[in-house]
Amino acid sequence: MISLRKLLLGRRLANRESGERKMGAFEGIPAMGLDGLGSSAYGPEAALTVLAVLGAASLSYISWVMVPILVLLAILFASYWQTIRAYPSNGGAYTVARENLGTNAGLLAAAALMIDYVLNVAVGISAGVGALVSAVPALHEHILPICLGILAFVTVMNLRGTLDAGRVFAVPTYLFVASFGAILAIGLFRAVMSGGHPQPVIPPPPLPQASQAVGLWLLLRAFASGCTAMTGVEAVSNGMSAFKEPTVRHGHRTLTGIVVILATLLAGIAYLAHVYGIGAMDQTQPTYRSVLSQLASAVVGQGIFYYVAIASLLAVLALSANTSFVDFPRLCRMVAADGFLPKPFAVAGQRLVFSIGIAYLAVAAGLLLVVFGGITEHLIPLFAIGAFLTFTLSQGGMVVHWLRQLREPMDAAHRRQTRLHLLVNALGAVTTGVALVVIILAKFTEGAWITVLVIPAVIALLRAIRGYYLRLELTVHDPTPLSLEGLSSPIVLVAIDEWNHLADRAITFALTLSPHVIGIHLAELAGPDETYNGKLQQRWERNVAVPARAGGFTPPELVILEAQYRAIHEPVLQLARDLELRHPEKTVAVLVPELVKQRWYQRLLHTHRARRLRQALLKHGGTRLTVISFPWYLHAEDRQLPVVPQEAT
Amino acid sequence: MISLRKLLLGRRLANRESGERKMGAFEGIPAMGLDGLGSSAYGPEAALTVLAVLGAASLSYISWVMVPILVLLAILFASYWQTIRAYPSNGGAYTVARENLGTNAGLLAAAALMIDYVLNVAVGISAGVGALVSAVPALHEHILPICLGILAFVTVMNLRGTLDAGRVFAVPTYLFVASFGAILAIGLFRAVMSGGHPQPVIPPPPLPQASQAVGLWLLLRAFASGCTAMTGVEAVSNGMSAFKEPTVRHGHRTLTGIVVILATLLAGIAYLAHVYGIGAMDQTQPTYRSVLSQLASAVVGQGIFYYVAIASLLAVLALSANTSFVDFPRLCRMVAADGFLPKPFAVAGQRLVFSIGIAYLAVAAGLLLVVFGGITEHLIPLFAIGAFLTFTLSQGGMVVHWLRQLREPMDAAHRRQTRLHLLVNALGAVTTGVALVVIILAKFTEGAWITVLVIPAVIALLRAIRGYYLRLELTVHDPTPLSLEGLSSPIVLVAIDEWNHLADRAITFALTLSPHVIGIHLAELAGPDETYNGKLQQRWERNVAVPARAGGFTPPELVILEAQYRAIHEPVLQLARDLELRHPEKTVAVLVPELVKQRWYQRLLHTHRARRLRQALLKHGGTRLTVISFPWYLHAEDRQLPVVPQEAT
Repeated sequence: MISLRKLLLGRRLANRESGERKMGAFEGIPAMGLDGLGSSAYGPEAALTVLAVLGAASLSYISWVMVPILVLLAILFASYWQTIRAYPSNGGAYTVARENLGTNAGLLAAAALMIDYVLNVAVGISAGVGALVSAVPALHEHILPICLGILAFVTVMNLRGTLDAGRVFAVPTYLFVASFGAILAIGLFRAVMSGGHPQPVIPPPPLPQASQAVGLWLLLRAFASGCTAMTGVEAVSNGMSAFKEPTVRHGHRTLTGIVVILATLLAGIAYLAHVYGIGAMDQTQPTYRSVLSQLASAVVGQGIFYYVAIASLLAVLALSANTSFVDFPRLCRMVAADGFLPKPFAVAGQRLVFSIGIAYLAVAAGLLLVVFGGITEHLIPLFAIGAFLTFTLSQGGMVVHWLRQLREPMDAAHRRQTRLHLLVNALGAVTTGVALVVIILAKFTEGAWITVLVIPAVIALLRAIRGYYLRLELTVHDPTPLSLEGLSSPIVLVAIDEWNHLADRAITFALTLSPHVIGIHLAELAGPDETYNGKLQQRWERNVAVPARAGGFTPPELVILEAQYRAIHEPVLQLARDLELRHPEKTVAVLVPELVKQRWYQRLLHTHRARRLRQALLKHGGTRLTVISFPWYLHAEDRQLPVVPQEAT
Repeated sequence: MISLRKLLLGRRLANRESGERKMGAFEGIPAMGLDGLGSSAYGPEAALTVLAVLGAASLSYISWVMVPILVLLAILFASYWQTIRAYPSNGGAYTVARENLGTNAGLLAAAALMIDYVLNVAVGISAGVGALVSAVPALHEHILPICLGILAFVTVMNLRGTLDAGRVFAVPTYLFVASFGAILAIGLFRAVMSGGHPQPVIPPPPLPQASQAVGLWLLLRAFASGCTAMTGVEAVSNGMSAFKEPTVRHGHRTLTGIVVILATLLAGIAYLAHVYGIGAMDQTQPTYRSVLSQLASAVVGQGIFYYVAIASLLAVLALSANTSFVDFPRLCRMVAADGFLPKPFAVAGQRLVFSIGIAYLAVAAGLLLVVFGGITEHLIPLFAIGAFLTFTLSQGGMVVHWLRQLREPMDAAHRRQTRLHLLVNALGAVTTGVALVVIILAKFTEGAWITVLVIPAVIALLRAIRGYYLRLELTVHDPTPLSLEGLSSPIVLVAIDEWNHLADRAITFALTLSPHVIGIHLAELAGPDETYNGKLQQRWERNVAVPARAGGFTPPELVILEAQYRAIHEPVLQLARDLELRHPEKTVAVLVPELVKQRWYQRLLHTHRARRLRQALLKHGGTRLTVISFPWYLHAEDRQLPVVPQEAT
C-alpha cells in the first residue's frame, strides 16, 4: 500500500523543500496556460458556428467578432498585468474582490471560480476525448472510460505536485504551439504570396447557403460564443503562489507567453479561415470536421505533420483540465484559511500540494462526466459565465484598489500612473461586464440558468461553514488562566480480560496515575454461554490485592460487569456514571489495554474490543470521562524503543 | 443507518432472551431439514440419469439403487438418533470425531463440513434458480442477480436469528411436503387400483433406446449419484444448540420428521417413476423436464395444483441453503472456541446469532456463485464427498465412544444395549465409508479431486490459526503477581493547538495525573506557510505557568515542535524517545484533546488530527508510551453526564 503510493506520488516532501518545488515561466505556461491555449480550438469555431446561418458571408463577418475579442483579450492582459504586480502573492479574483469589494463580492467570485474550475475539467477532458473519437471512431464506445482514465492520470500527476505536472505537460503543450505556429506561418506565407487567394492542399468542403441575413443580435451571440476563447486567462493571477521568486517577473512572463500565443492563434485562425474559405460544420453529422482540422489539411495536407498537430491538439484539450487542478486547490486553500471551507482544504499533503482540494475537484468532475456520459454539448453553455463573472469582479476590485490609492497623498507622476492603472482596469471591468451580460442573455435558456442558480447555493454553503467555525471558536474560547484549586486524582478503571502481562502492566501503570484503581471485567460478552467462572477473582486477590497491600497501596478492587447486549461499553458507562455521582469532585479515566495490530492478519484474528470500547466511551462518555490507551505489541522486536521513521531522500 | 439495521434485523436481543429464541421441532424441520428434503428433488433424478443408458430397462433397476439408499438412510437415522442422545448439546461430526478420534480427525471433519456448507449454499440456490428459469425462460438472462438476491434474503433472515428463519421458511417447506405428499398418495392409489398400470393424465415422453447393458460399475455409479439425496441428514446433530429444552426430545422429533418425510418421498418417487415409466431426460436439451415435473403432470395434470407444487419445490430448493446458515456459524463457533478459527466467530451478534460466521458463509457462497455464474453442474461433483466424509468420521467416533464405555463396569442389560449401539454405529461407519470410496472413485475426474485437495489446505489454515493463538497466549502469559517497587509517575505530554477551553481542561487534567507535564505545540503542520508566531508562548506564560507556580505546582513547560513532513506524530515520537532516554525510570503519556464528532458533517469539517495522532503514536510508540484521549463535545447538551442508552423492549 505504502509502496504503491510512493510509486504513484513519489517520496513525501518536507516543508523546507517548498522553495525548490516552485516553478518558472517555462513550467508555468503548460501548468497554467493549457486552459487558455486549449480555448483557441473551440473559441473561433463556436463563433463560426453561430455565424454559419450566413453561409459564405459568415467569413466576411468573422473579423467583426474576432477583433472585439482580441481587443478584449488585450484589455484583460493589461488588467491582469497590473493585478499581478499589485497582488504578487495571490492575485486571484477571490482575494481582489474580497479586499476591495467586501466579503460578499469575494464569495461570489469564489463560488463562480469553483464552479468554473469543475466545469473546465469536465469540458476539457470530454472535448479532448470527443475530438479523439471523431478521429478514431473505433473508440466511440469507450468515451466515458477514456474520460475517467485521463481524469485519473491528471489527478495523480497533480497529487505528485504542480512542478511535476508542469514538466510532464510541457511536451504536448510546446508541440501544439510549434506545430500550429508552423501551420499558421506557412498558411500566412502562401496567402501573402498568392495575393490573398492561396490554393488549399486539400480544399475544405463548400459553405452552405445563407439562411438568414446579418443582424446585431446574431453578431452579439457569435461574440458571446467566441468569448469562450478567453477562459483561462485569469489562471496566472490565481496561481501566483506556485511561482518561484521573483514571483511577479515569473508571473508576468507566464501571462505574456500565454496571451501572446493565444492571440496569435486566434488571429491566425480567423484570417486563414477567411482566406481559405473554412466555415464551421454541423457537429451532429458524421461528416463533421473541426475548423482546426480543415485548416491544417488545407495548409499542409493530411501527411504525418497533420497527424502530429492534431494529436498535440487532442492532448492540449484533454490536459486543459490541468489548469483547474493547479488553481482550484489554491483557491480552496485561501477560502478555507478564511474559514469558509473545511480546514482540511488548507493542509498541504505529502507532496506539498493541497491534496484534499485535488481530490474534491477530481470527484466532482468525475461525477459530472458520469452524469453527462462524457458529452460536452450540455456543459458548454454553463461554462463561460463563471469566467466572465470573475473577470468583472476582479477588474472591479482593482478599480476600487486604485481609487483607494488615489486618496493617499502621492507625487504627480505617480498619480498620473495610478490614474492610468485605474483607467485600464475600469475599461476591463466595463467590457467584461458587458460581455457577461451578453453571454447570460444569449445562453440563458441553453443552460446558463443552472449556473445562475448554483452560484448562490454555493455561497450559502460557504457561509454556513463559516458560521459553524465561528460558533466553534466561541465555544472553545477561553480568556481565563488555569484554575488549579481542589484538584483531585481521577478514578482509574482498568479493563481486564484475564490475568496476563497486559493486565499486570496496565494495573501497574494505573497505580502510577492515581491511588484509586478499579479493575473491571465483563462477563457474557461473547453471548449467553460465556459465564463468569470466578477464577479471575482468585487470581486478582493473589496477584494484585496482596502485593498492593504489601507495597502500601490501597488494594485495587475487581468489579465484574454483565454485558447483556454484548455491547462492551454500556456497563462500563453505567459504572462510570455511578462513580461520578458518588465522587462529584473526581473525574473517571478508563484504561484500555490494546494489542497493536502490526500485521494485516491480526486484524482478522482479534475482536477489536479495545478499539470499539475506546470509540464508544469517547462518544457517549461525557467530558468527565477520559480514555487511556495502553499499547501492547505481540512481536518482541516492536516492544523496544521506537525508531522514528526517517524518509530517505 | 441504525434504523435501517433495526428494520432489517429487528431490535437487538439480550443474553437472557436466548432461551426464548430456541426452537422446537415445528421450526426445526424447516430450519434444518430444507437441505435434506430438497435432496429428494435431485437425488433420484441423479441416479436415473446414470441409469438412462439402459433405456426402458433403467426403470427395473431403480429399486436396485434406491433400496440400498433407503437402507443406508435407515442406518444413518439410527446412528444419529444415538449421537443426539450421547451428545445432547452439540453432536456434530467435529465434536464427536475430536473427542473420540483425536484433534486431526476433528479438524478433518470440520474442514469437510465447512466446504460442504459453502457448496450447499451455492448449489441449493443455483439449482432452485435453474429450475425456476426452466419454468420461466424469460428470466434466463438474470440467473446470477436472482441467485445473489436469494442469497441476500436468506442471509438477512438468518442475521435476524434462527427462530425467525425457521418460522418464515415453514410456509414453503410444509407446502412442499403437503403437495408432493398428496401427489404421491394419489399416484399410489391409482397404481394400486389399476393393478400397477395407472393411466397418466399427461403421459411422460417415451424412454430412449438402451445403449449399454447393465453392470456392477454402472449400478455403483448410479448409487453414488443417488447418495446426494442423503446430504443434509447430519444437520440436526450439528445444530442441537438451537433447540429449546429438552433438547434431545426436540432433536429426535426433528430428525424423525426429516428422515420419515425424506424416505417417503424417495420411495414414492422411485415407485411411481417405475409404474408411470418416467426416466431422466438430458438437461442440456431445450425440451428437458425434471423427473418431479414429469411425475406431477402424470399424476395430476398441469392445472393449478401442479404449479403450486412446482413453486413450493423451487422455494425449497432455493432455501435449502438455509440449513448451512443454521449450522455453519455454530460449527465455526465451536472451532473458534477451540482456537482454530479467529475469535470473532465465537461472538454472538446483536440478534444472538454468530453474525461473523453468517457473513463469511454468505461471502464465500456469493463468490462461488459469481465465479461459476450460477451454474450448478460444475459444483455438484465436489459436493457429496464432504457429507459422506463427515458421516464416516461421526459414526467412527461413535464406535470409539461405545468401545470406551464398554471398558467401564456396567450391568448385563446395559452392556447388551451398549453393544447394540456399537453395532448400529459400526454398521453406519462401514456403509458410509464404502459409499464415500464409491463416490470419490466415481466422481474423481469430474471435480471431486478439487475437494480432495482443498480439505488439507483448510486443515493447514486452521492449524496455523491455532498456532498464532498459542504463541499469543505464551507471550501474554503472566504467572507472577504485581511488582510495585520504584513506581514513578509518568511524564505527561499535552498536545496543544492553541490556547482555549480544551487546552485549559487538558492541562488541568494532566496535572491531576503527574507533576511532570509538558505542553507540545506543532508548527508548520498545515504546510510551509504556517509558521509559529510566538503568541502561544506568551499566553502559556500568563495562563499556565503563572497560576501553576502560584498553586505550588512545577510550572509545565511549552515545547514547540516542527513538523517538516506535516506528519504530526513524528516530532512527538522523537521527543518521547528523548525523554525516555533521559528518564529511564519513567513512562511517557501523550494527552490528546479530541473533539468528539457527534454530527455527520463534523467529520468533513475537521482535520482528524487527534485521531491520526493517537493511531500513529499507538502504532509506533512502543509499550512505554501511553495515549490519553481527552474528549470534548461541541454541543452543550452532550457535555452533561451521559445517559446510558437503554433498548426499548
